[in-house]
Amino acid sequence: MGLVVQKYGGSSVADAEGIKRVAKRVVEAKKNGHQVVVVVSAMGDTTDELIDLAGEVSPVASGREFDMLLTAGERISMALLAMAIKSLGHEAQSFTGSQAGVITDSVHNKARIIDVTPGRIKTALDEGNIAIVAGFQGVSQDKKDITTLGRGGSDTTAVALAAALDAEVCEIYTDVDGVFTADPRVVKKARKIDWISFEDMLELASSGSKVLLHRCVEYARRYNIPIHVRSSFSGLRGTWVSNEPQGDQPMEQALISGVAHDTSEAKITIVGVPDKPGEAAKIFRAIADAELNIDMVVQNVSAASTGLTDISFTLPKTDGRRAIESLEKAKGGIGFDSLRYDDQIAKISLVGAGMKTNPGVTATFFEALSGSGVNIELISTSEIRISVVTRKDDVNEAVRAVHTAFGLDSDSDEAVVYGGTGR
Amino acid sequence: MGLVVQKYGGSSVADAEGIKRVAKRVVEAKKNGHQVVVVVSAMGDTTDELIDLAGEVSPVASGREFDMLLTAGERISMALLAMAIKSLGHEAQSFTGSQAGVITDSVHNKARIIDVTPGRIKTALDEGNIAIVAGFQGVSQDKKDITTLGRGGSDTTAVALAAALDAEVCEIYTDVDGVFTADPRVVKKARKIDWISFEDMLELASSGSKVLLHRCVEYARRYNIPIHVRSSFSGLRGTWVSNEPQGDQPMEQALISGVAHDTSEAKITIVGVPDKPGEAAKIFRAIADAELNIDMVVQNVSAASTGLTDISFTLPKTDGRRAIESLEKAKGGIGFDSLRYDDQIAKISLVGAGMKTNPGVTATFFEALSGSGVNIELISTSEIRISVVTRKDDVNEAVRAVHTAFGLDSDSDEAVVYGGTGR
Repeated sequence: MGLVVQKYGGSSVADAEGIKRVAKRVVEAKKNGHQVVVVVSAMGDTTDELIDLAGEVSPVASGREFDMLLTAGERISMALLAMAIKSLGHEAQSFTGSQAGVITDSVHNKARIIDVTPGRIKTALDEGNIAIVAGFQGVSQDKKDITTLGRGGSDTTAVALAAALDAEVCEIYTDVDGVFTADPRVVKKARKIDWISFEDMLELASSGSKVLLHRCVEYARRYNIPIHVRSSFSGLRGTWVSNEPQGDQPMEQALISGVAHDTSEAKITIVGVPDKPGEAAKIFRAIADAELNIDMVVQNVSAASTGLTDISFTLPKTDGRRAIESLEKAKGGIGFDSLRYDDQIAKISLVGAGMKTNPGVTATFFEALSGSGVNIELISTSEIRISVVTRKDDVNEAVRAVHTAFGLDSDSDEAVVYGGTGR
Repeated sequence: MGLVVQKYGGSSVADAEGIKRVAKRVVEAKKNGHQVVVVVSAMGDTTDELIDLAGEVSPVASGREFDMLLTAGERISMALLAMAIKSLGHEAQSFTGSQAGVITDSVHNKARIIDVTPGRIKTALDEGNIAIVAGFQGVSQDKKDITTLGRGGSDTTAVALAAALDAEVCEIYTDVDGVFTADPRVVKKARKIDWISFEDMLELASSGSKVLLHRCVEYARRYNIPIHVRSSFSGLRGTWVSNEPQGDQPMEQALISGVAHDTSEAKITIVGVPDKPGEAAKIFRAIADAELNIDMVVQNVSAASTGLTDISFTLPKTDGRRAIESLEKAKGGIGFDSLRYDDQIAKISLVGAGMKTNPGVTATFFEALSGSGVNIELISTSEIRISVVTRKDDVNEAVRAVHTAFGLDSDSDEAVVYGGTGR
């Protein structure tokens, strides 16, 4: 039996009862013969409460001190979990990100892990301890300051530790049963996915699926660490994310892994851009200089008569205002007629490695949309993903229609599969 | 202008408003030209809430993990304070006990400071920052584990940092105006003491005065760091504790510094102890083996007719039960008739260096007690202190009577003084 890294989110350790339940599960893994490293988030709403407090004392909550503040949350949950495990008669030691050797760059509030040097964790494990590690935090390489990894950072901590410790698996415990073929709140007939490849999971994550964040999956793929996403409440088998299916995991992969949707984006259309080299570059330089991340970018051929074209892109709504301001400022240098801002959009994405070798997927997708009366405003594709932008009000119906069209509904006989090698 | 260490207790930083008020005061000191190091406790009841949480997940809350848990409290307050200072336009950086170089032994929950290596604090100060340091915590020398210093630990952190940084003064901010000649809740006419020597302050602290703890004063005396105890709410000048009065501090010392009382102790009387060499040693070996701290010890001459004597001692009520058990167990080896346990006692102490050279202090003390009908049960004295044990019910009246008898009341013309050299 090898080493297992388990990660528990804030909802799993929201109160004393939750912590005791997690302690029992951790001890179970230890009893089964594993070495166990546990990564915990802060209890329930602790982080939000700390953010509120920060807002009360300072208008700008960011930087070094903000990280110092937020990391108190995991310190509390990890110490309590260690105490709960000890009261079950097993040895446990808790470690801050810094003590666990999570070395990051110096970008406070969204630091990136540079290296993991888990010497103290190894020692603790060798001495028979269960090691508890604070998620979401590290220490900067140059200044030795406390840093945080940003949203979803605890998952990344878990995967990074799993890689550094050569773990068998990284188990991500959450409040749902795994990764689903669509958001179960929208599609009642969504199925839990038993196994999914890193590639498909990456596309789902960047298309609006919130169970795992892109950064965490990317890290797991790079170091080839299998992730098992499962519920801390049910004990059921969840979703395995890995390079290849293993053991009793399905050897054939569904044509389509899932349908993701995202209503957190807005669309900006730049109308009347001169259709000549360098124009698009100027536009996206202006956006990049404002440090804004954009998602889909679409440009159509220009109407020959005018020599002008329109460029559209999507980006998080929260960045919308800054993007408009940056573009207005750069208007003189770029040269365009006007800007249109639209935050009533939704993005629907179909993800599946099978589409590479199976013609007709796009057609089926678009037929399903039109069949339910949904209009397509933008289209963008990758090798294993097709995304469209529609009206926000249409999104639930559209997702359900597409889910059904690809045989993903839980009451359909079987999902459409392709004779996968488990790619 | 030199370096100032300021320490703020939990009641001073209980909420966002408190933190902002403290930030203003800190900035004021900086504007006055000082280098400023600030030591903070956890906000208000944070530590108690964490202790409650620990109790919910584990029956035994102690050791390494308990320290990890508790130190989250200061981490929150120090980060918030640094943010509040920055929002006033000044630079501030916060440091954990470990980052500040507070090195301790490995006795969790009541570690002792072994060394302070404040390299990062010095750098931060040299770069123009106000340095904020988490009180109450350190890092163990051998295992690099997080430790806490026990009750009143933040005061000790402040004094230790002041010593290591060669500070001009260590300012202890609290919710009272300073050290008083008696507990103002009991004696309405108690006066604030302007200056008091380390020696008298040590005696007051070990006699029940709660403003400063013995350990902190002892540390300050050893390194000769003047302490200024003052209110974080009023801005008034408080009480200076130092070797010698300085500047405009009073050059003559009151005969009596103050009257302290303590109702947290119990009295154990061992009845019928054979009056021969080695008996007392056996008794206190039994107590010491149980790791119990005792306070007053009194033995009277034995009644010649019986060859037996009684030995009484006082100790914290919380240790009473264990003491009785230890003595019962050792009864055979020691040889005594019986044990009497009494937790309805109070200790009243009169403290003042002047009593060394002024006859009549003891007489005045006892006259005041008998004048108010208070019976004395035990007496114990040091060079600069007289303590008596009385009934608990009598304590308030007794303290007021003694306070008046020595001219300490705020409406009396003048306290009785002796031509002090500021000893």
